[in-house]
Amino acid sequence: MRILSNELSKHIGQEATVSGWLHKKREMGNLTFLVIRDRQGLIQIVDDMSEESSKLKGLQSGTIISVTGMVKEEPRASNGAEIHDPKVTIEVPITEVPPIEVDKNISHNPDNYDTLFGYRYLTLRNLKERAIFRVQDGVSRGAREFFHKNDFTEFRSPKLLAGATEGGSEVFTLDYFGQTASLAQSAQFYKQMMVGVFERVFEIGATYRAEPSFTTRHMTEFTTIDMELGFVNSVQDVWDITNNLLNSISDYIWTHYEGDLNLLGAIKPLLPSKYPQITVDNLHALYFEKTKKDLRGEKDPSPEEERWICEYSNKNWGSDAVFVTEFPSSEKAFYHMVNPDKPEVTYRADLLFRGVEIATVPLREHRYDILLEQIKAKGLDPESEGFKYYVAAFKYGMPMHGGFGMGFERLVQKFIGLASVKEATLFPRDVNRLAP
Amino acid sequence: MRILSNELSKHIGQEATVSGWLHKKREMGNLTFLVIRDRQGLIQIVDDMSEESSKLKGLQSGTIISVTGMVKEEPRASNGAEIHDPKVTIEVPITEVPPIEVDKNISHNPDNYDTLFGYRYLTLRNLKERAIFRVQDGVSRGAREFFHKNDFTEFRSPKLLAGATEGGSEVFTLDYFGQTASLAQSAQFYKQMMVGVFERVFEIGATYRAEPSFTTRHMTEFTTIDMELGFVNSVQDVWDITNNLLNSISDYIWTHYEGDLNLLGAIKPLLPSKYPQITVDNLHALYFEKTKKDLRGEKDPSPEEERWICEYSNKNWGSDAVFVTEFPSSEKAFYHMVNPDKPEVTYRADLLFRGVEIATVPLREHRYDILLEQIKAKGLDPESEGFKYYVAAFKYGMPMHGGFGMGFERLVQKFIGLASVKEATLFPRDVNRLAP
Repeated sequence: MRILSNELSKHIGQEATVSGWLHKKREMGNLTFLVIRDRQGLIQIVDDMSEESSKLKGLQSGTIISVTGMVKEEPRASNGAEIHDPKVTIEVPITEVPPIEVDKNISHNPDNYDTLFGYRYLTLRNLKERAIFRVQDGVSRGAREFFHKNDFTEFRSPKLLAGATEGGSEVFTLDYFGQTASLAQSAQFYKQMMVGVFERVFEIGATYRAEPSFTTRHMTEFTTIDMELGFVNSVQDVWDITNNLLNSISDYIWTHYEGDLNLLGAIKPLLPSKYPQITVDNLHALYFEKTKKDLRGEKDPSPEEERWICEYSNKNWGSDAVFVTEFPSSEKAFYHMVNPDKPEVTYRADLLFRGVEIATVPLREHRYDILLEQIKAKGLDPESEGFKYYVAAFKYGMPMHGGFGMGFERLVQKFIGLASVKEATLFPRDVNRLAP
Repeated sequence: MRILSNELSKHIGQEATVSGWLHKKREMGNLTFLVIRDRQGLIQIVDDMSEESSKLKGLQSGTIISVTGMVKEEPRASNGAEIHDPKVTIEVPITEVPPIEVDKNISHNPDNYDTLFGYRYLTLRNLKERAIFRVQDGVSRGAREFFHKNDFTEFRSPKLLAGATEGGSEVFTLDYFGQTASLAQSAQFYKQMMVGVFERVFEIGATYRAEPSFTTRHMTEFTTIDMELGFVNSVQDVWDITNNLLNSISDYIWTHYEGDLNLLGAIKPLLPSKYPQITVDNLHALYFEKTKKDLRGEKDPSPEEERWICEYSNKNWGSDAVFVTEFPSSEKAFYHMVNPDKPEVTYRADLLFRGVEIATVPLREHRYDILLEQIKAKGLDPESEGFKYYVAAFKYGMPMHGGFGMGFERLVQKFIGLASVKEATLFPRDVNRLAP
């Protein structure tokens, strides 16, 4: 019966069997140290002059082995125990020297991306690389737990759409039995329609953007956490649930994935129960006051101001997340709702987290006539193929609602503190990269 | 403070506020009955000669209303309570008569598919239609709960692949900045590579097939539950976990979604802790013995035999699931492992559930040299773009493993007892259907 590395210390003084990949082998005088990697971590095996470790002669890292031996306490070993007097069984011998040393740190310098991503099947065998994607799984688990606790239904929107979708030029198109189809750039229309059914919905799904950019930020395929909340009383309800979601995910991963986060050197973010809010105008004013750089009158916060206000908030407000509010109506999308008490601004906040915007969180326009007007005011046709189903849902009754689409890999990146979103993506896709 | 329909009976004798869509309205003598739909169900409102319900004059199903009134016990009402003496607030008035009566059963006859799917934003407001997708959410929740309890890591494989993928002609291709890309037909290669990292992995993700078929069975975009399990001792370990997964999902939905399943008339399947197994040859023999139809010598069970053995198993073996084993090696895929003790068969079972095959559950060939030989024996090139990353993972050490890809919508269909997989799909895509 195989035990795992994290169970080793429960078996001190007993015989136990472990299995995994040969991670490392070294000899010191009369001792041979083997390190085995399994899905939970590493196990040290000490072979003291026996013939057993000689079975590994000529075999390389990656060899699959099973070892039965005596578990001894060893405070210096990663699990507080190691295995002595081993009997070694070679399950799958590997003679080829791998091109990556998986027990050594792998550079995340963009110059090394071809190695990091091109050899993913090996680089992920490094414990730190693997930890990123364990945390990623934790982020989706934490998000789903929160959503389900709050009565949200997960749905699956189609990614194959008719024609080239509305509003964006960077669309992948494909031949669909003689028609043109495109890959979805957003689940927004579908999730809004689903508010008319389930009231509260979410999806963690793929998003496509034919982004011809070479930066480390842009990917052509990524994952979005899409949320939409109906029957709200005000936009504050939508902000509150967004705030609570982020806090719940953070607590979830720092509870269940603390070892991985520590291995990655991640620092738990400061996330109070109510994030600070600042209007666009007040942000410009504060930035001017503190830095003497004048962006007053600009419609959006600049990327530099977003970084700055997050640092300021961390130091002065005890929060790594900030809601920037009161965006000008002149900049609104057709689906944003204007604040009737202050028609120059919309009911929208941008959620900043650790220096970047991670979500735009608006109240949607849910009133059919006004929505139609706002679509037409953008020069778009509500009766076109791209719009007609969407607007029909409103024609037959939609409650006040709001939501967001949040980049999933971006969120993982920011929780861990990685330099690029690609490092938080298992198999990143960009203008140059379609494999493996 | 809004309460939901399923909380109504806790508020008997109190004043309460409910909100939702006007679902139905009828007048009987001096009484007006309003039925409101919210995310949990229906609420009956009784208006006795007051002026309140006249506010709804000219307003249609779909109108968003809030009602405050006195909750009274009423055993005949769906929640054991109803609201009297209502004060009605019209939140969003709807004057347009909807083309679908959402309080009436909606036909699932394929002749009605254009209505059923074309008006999804309305047909889903029918409680039974909605229940299908609540159960669907339950199936993925149950699956994830099982996988995480058993130490599986969820991963996300890319759906954009270089070139036209291996082994299948029915591939969607697209222009990718001048290259050709295709949409993934399977996550198999990726999940096998991930066994080399996490040992146990799963994905619930999209799969694409350019299937030019007009049947009700085929879709071009669907969801697959992909699972892969490493460090197994035999194929029986893989079958056991598949068996336990299906049982866990069934228990999960019949615990948490029983109301929805009852509404749909679903019958809980017979799923014993160990499913019956029958070899292909024995299946043919039993079928011949009982029906006098002779399929002995055929390599695969026929669809008719799959239906038949499931009925037979339900009656005689107390199981709606059956593993059919010992498929001939002559029919194997390159990744199947041959049984060395009986080289004429592979380590593979087909899992039948309620009359259809829902998964092929094999042991994969994990030994690099043999895998290479088997790829070449199919006339394929292991050094080609489609194979080279996949085989490299094996070159550097892969444990014995197996897994399956199971159609998610198909599974939902079979749990509920729907006639077609499309009825278990929110927005089905087929050769004729790309919208909404």
